[in-house]
Amino acid sequence: MAEKLGIEVKKADDPNAWFTEIINKSEMIEYTDVSGCYILRPKSQHIWDTIHDFIDTRIKRRGVKNCSFPLFIPESLLLKEQEHVEGFAPEVAWVTHSGETKLAERLAVRPTSETIMYAAYAKWIRNYKDLPLKLNQWNNVVRWEFKHPQPFLRSREFYWQEGHTAFATEAEAREEAMDILMNVYRPTYEELLAIPVLVGAKTEREKFAGAVQSLSCEVFLPIGKAIQGCTSHYLGTNFAKAFGIEYVGQDQQKHFAHQNSWGFTTRSIGVAIMMHSDDKGLVLPPPVADHKVIIVPVFQKDNNEDVLTAAKEISHELKGFDPLIDDRIGYTLGWRMNDAELRGYPLRIELGNRELEAGIVTLVRRDTLQKMQVKREELRETVKEQLEAMQRALYLKAKAHLDASIVEEYSSLENIQKQVEAGKLIKTAYFSDSTTDDIIREKTAGKTLCSPFEDLTKDYVCPFTGKPATHYVYIAKSL
Amino acid sequence: MAEKLGIEVKKADDPNAWFTEIINKSEMIEYTDVSGCYILRPKSQHIWDTIHDFIDTRIKRRGVKNCSFPLFIPESLLLKEQEHVEGFAPEVAWVTHSGETKLAERLAVRPTSETIMYAAYAKWIRNYKDLPLKLNQWNNVVRWEFKHPQPFLRSREFYWQEGHTAFATEAEAREEAMDILMNVYRPTYEELLAIPVLVGAKTEREKFAGAVQSLSCEVFLPIGKAIQGCTSHYLGTNFAKAFGIEYVGQDQQKHFAHQNSWGFTTRSIGVAIMMHSDDKGLVLPPPVADHKVIIVPVFQKDNNEDVLTAAKEISHELKGFDPLIDDRIGYTLGWRMNDAELRGYPLRIELGNRELEAGIVTLVRRDTLQKMQVKREELRETVKEQLEAMQRALYLKAKAHLDASIVEEYSSLENIQKQVEAGKLIKTAYFSDSTTDDIIREKTAGKTLCSPFEDLTKDYVCPFTGKPATHYVYIAKSL
Repeated sequence: MAEKLGIEVKKADDPNAWFTEIINKSEMIEYTDVSGCYILRPKSQHIWDTIHDFIDTRIKRRGVKNCSFPLFIPESLLLKEQEHVEGFAPEVAWVTHSGETKLAERLAVRPTSETIMYAAYAKWIRNYKDLPLKLNQWNNVVRWEFKHPQPFLRSREFYWQEGHTAFATEAEAREEAMDILMNVYRPTYEELLAIPVLVGAKTEREKFAGAVQSLSCEVFLPIGKAIQGCTSHYLGTNFAKAFGIEYVGQDQQKHFAHQNSWGFTTRSIGVAIMMHSDDKGLVLPPPVADHKVIIVPVFQKDNNEDVLTAAKEISHELKGFDPLIDDRIGYTLGWRMNDAELRGYPLRIELGNRELEAGIVTLVRRDTLQKMQVKREELRETVKEQLEAMQRALYLKAKAHLDASIVEEYSSLENIQKQVEAGKLIKTAYFSDSTTDDIIREKTAGKTLCSPFEDLTKDYVCPFTGKPATHYVYIAKSL
Repeated sequence: MAEKLGIEVKKADDPNAWFTEIINKSEMIEYTDVSGCYILRPKSQHIWDTIHDFIDTRIKRRGVKNCSFPLFIPESLLLKEQEHVEGFAPEVAWVTHSGETKLAERLAVRPTSETIMYAAYAKWIRNYKDLPLKLNQWNNVVRWEFKHPQPFLRSREFYWQEGHTAFATEAEAREEAMDILMNVYRPTYEELLAIPVLVGAKTEREKFAGAVQSLSCEVFLPIGKAIQGCTSHYLGTNFAKAFGIEYVGQDQQKHFAHQNSWGFTTRSIGVAIMMHSDDKGLVLPPPVADHKVIIVPVFQKDNNEDVLTAAKEISHELKGFDPLIDDRIGYTLGWRMNDAELRGYPLRIELGNRELEAGIVTLVRRDTLQKMQVKREELRETVKEQLEAMQRALYLKAKAHLDASIVEEYSSLENIQKQVEAGKLIKTAYFSDSTTDDIIREKTAGKTLCSPFEDLTKDYVCPFTGKPATHYVYIAKSL
């Protein structure tokens, strides 16, 4: 409270500095002495808990059960799947000692749990009746990967759910990977966080280490940069072969199980902040805000009894919206209003003697900052409507920006370069290959995001390689 | 399924071997390659999630908010409170490398979060308006302490909630530490897990490293051994002084904050299993069972249509009790009944043609194994009643054993030794001091559990030291 209120950096001028200021001053995050590891304060924990409930309900409906596997993975286990270990080994945090005793084998702090989980799957899966096996964990993972860590977006420890499923057939596995992406993750972004997403398949170069195919939600931010939102992987039988996950089918033959893994992380909180917040502070989608309404009484020199009583009555009437009253003495009205904007309460109710006499309140929506006069008897209904209207408006604003940013360019490399540089989202057709991805990184300011789930409708020539194009692909600068 | 069904070791003969067999065969736990770290399978995860919700609701009602602090604690932070570091340093898992790079400072995998949390509290707490501060985390911690680790009871990684609160005054802090013990933790054991507890204060020797006073729930098991159930600590200003947690009071003077920490762990799951389960397998308190009812259709040589249809109808009628149907072909009725007993479903419904014709079902309660015939139209109500009756019966059985085990002995050391050896729970009066605890460990087969919240009513002489007694104390063998 003693610190200077108000955001000093503008989002458009320096998005990273603005982001840092926002999440600190609104008390979402506190830094610690461990670089890349942050404290999620109650306001951001509430968002994560809301996301948790949203996803957990949907995956349980699909027969997924929660469980907990150990934090530590012996090095020998991590080494079992070749591509996987190559992808993760450089960023593993290693435990080497307990007390002053050196461990016989060093232990990885899990960067993801495929290896320790699949060692158990190999024990549990014997015949086709044991399939499908659908488990999920809500936990923390550590990836010591980022030279420039950033809270939520690129943190060394983060929180997520990791779903790990095994099926008898490729078709079932691929169907589930797609179902999770389209019917669990997409609505989490679109309905809960008011963020439109691009869905598609990651390119060869960008897919998960050990996967056959990685599907993803990609988010395009108002600052003209994209960020990966979440992924759902079809692992094929790669891990099944490495770990010996075999089942006896109805044909009495042994088969390798087909596996998926899919995860949704606390990065999504950072994405939501980057998407919706502004130069006055946080703008939170109402479904994830810890308090949907803040009531700010307007104090007079004396006799504030009536205003405080009315504030309490209104708070009581608005039960279910977790209203908060800011009745702090010693802070001006202007200061308290700015503070409410900084902290991103979706609706602010201002209440003074003038309002009391007229039987109204002043209602201010955080996204538009427009004021409206609302009759007391209509308040509850109006609050409900305005929260829904705000959620729609946030989504539509983001969607309008996304739609306006997409540039289709199928031939001119020069125009692709120019548009990427200008912060546009390019849709083009290319020859899908790891080397093409490298060329794109080299020749443009951007990288590939994903290939949409559409077949090519024309015979395009890949603008990067001159070869016949195989897929559509999105390209943009990346956060 | 291929493994041999049925528990081969008897609880009375070898409780530890019996426990290991129970939790493996009922699919509560799977072992891993990391000694002391276990997989919580969905059945035990469900129990923990139920405990989570029970406690979380109650602490939120008390104004406690959830948050997440980093898993890693820099060594320099851990060293700040002298007693604390001495208590935990020998059992810390140390991260020394990321990838192949040696870290500048080694990082402790949190054994508990006092140090990293209180470094932040020192930043956040400035004046009396910032108090009380009440935060909680649901997370995993690692203590590499046990020579003989055991799932749930003594695992190297475990799950818990850790509440950390700061107050202006000692009185407020002590009141909260007691409130959490008596009104959050005790009902978690008594109401949810059907386990009676002894409440009291830990002795000097047994209290938490860094605390002024540790309060605890102690559980006395049917095998004649006690185990600590959970603790709530008043930390005084020990950590506040080490971390500089000071507030400016209404008197404009600086004061150190008074702090508490309190935790409830997955050990409680192991305690519940040790308390209630028997030689046939798991016996779970109904409120924490993943499925309250299992329906076992009795198959005939042919025409099982009617029985299966009825099983589905009953399953539908019993919605809310998460009923499960065991309609596995190829397993005998006896095998499926034993399997249901092994897995601890509180109620089993047997359903064959005989029952169908009579319009009844056979209902079997897991704790008593008594069979009753129930009319179909009364089934839902009877299920509800029997689940409640079972919960009461489990509690009363444990309470009767506890009451019958308490031996009050205030003078004869020899009798105390004899009774402890015989698996009794001794209540005596002693001279409270660390050295007395050592004498008790040396001269008896037991140790002190806690001192009940009662003042001495007579002038006793401590049977261990000959000094005037200061407190009542419980002594028993320890698991």
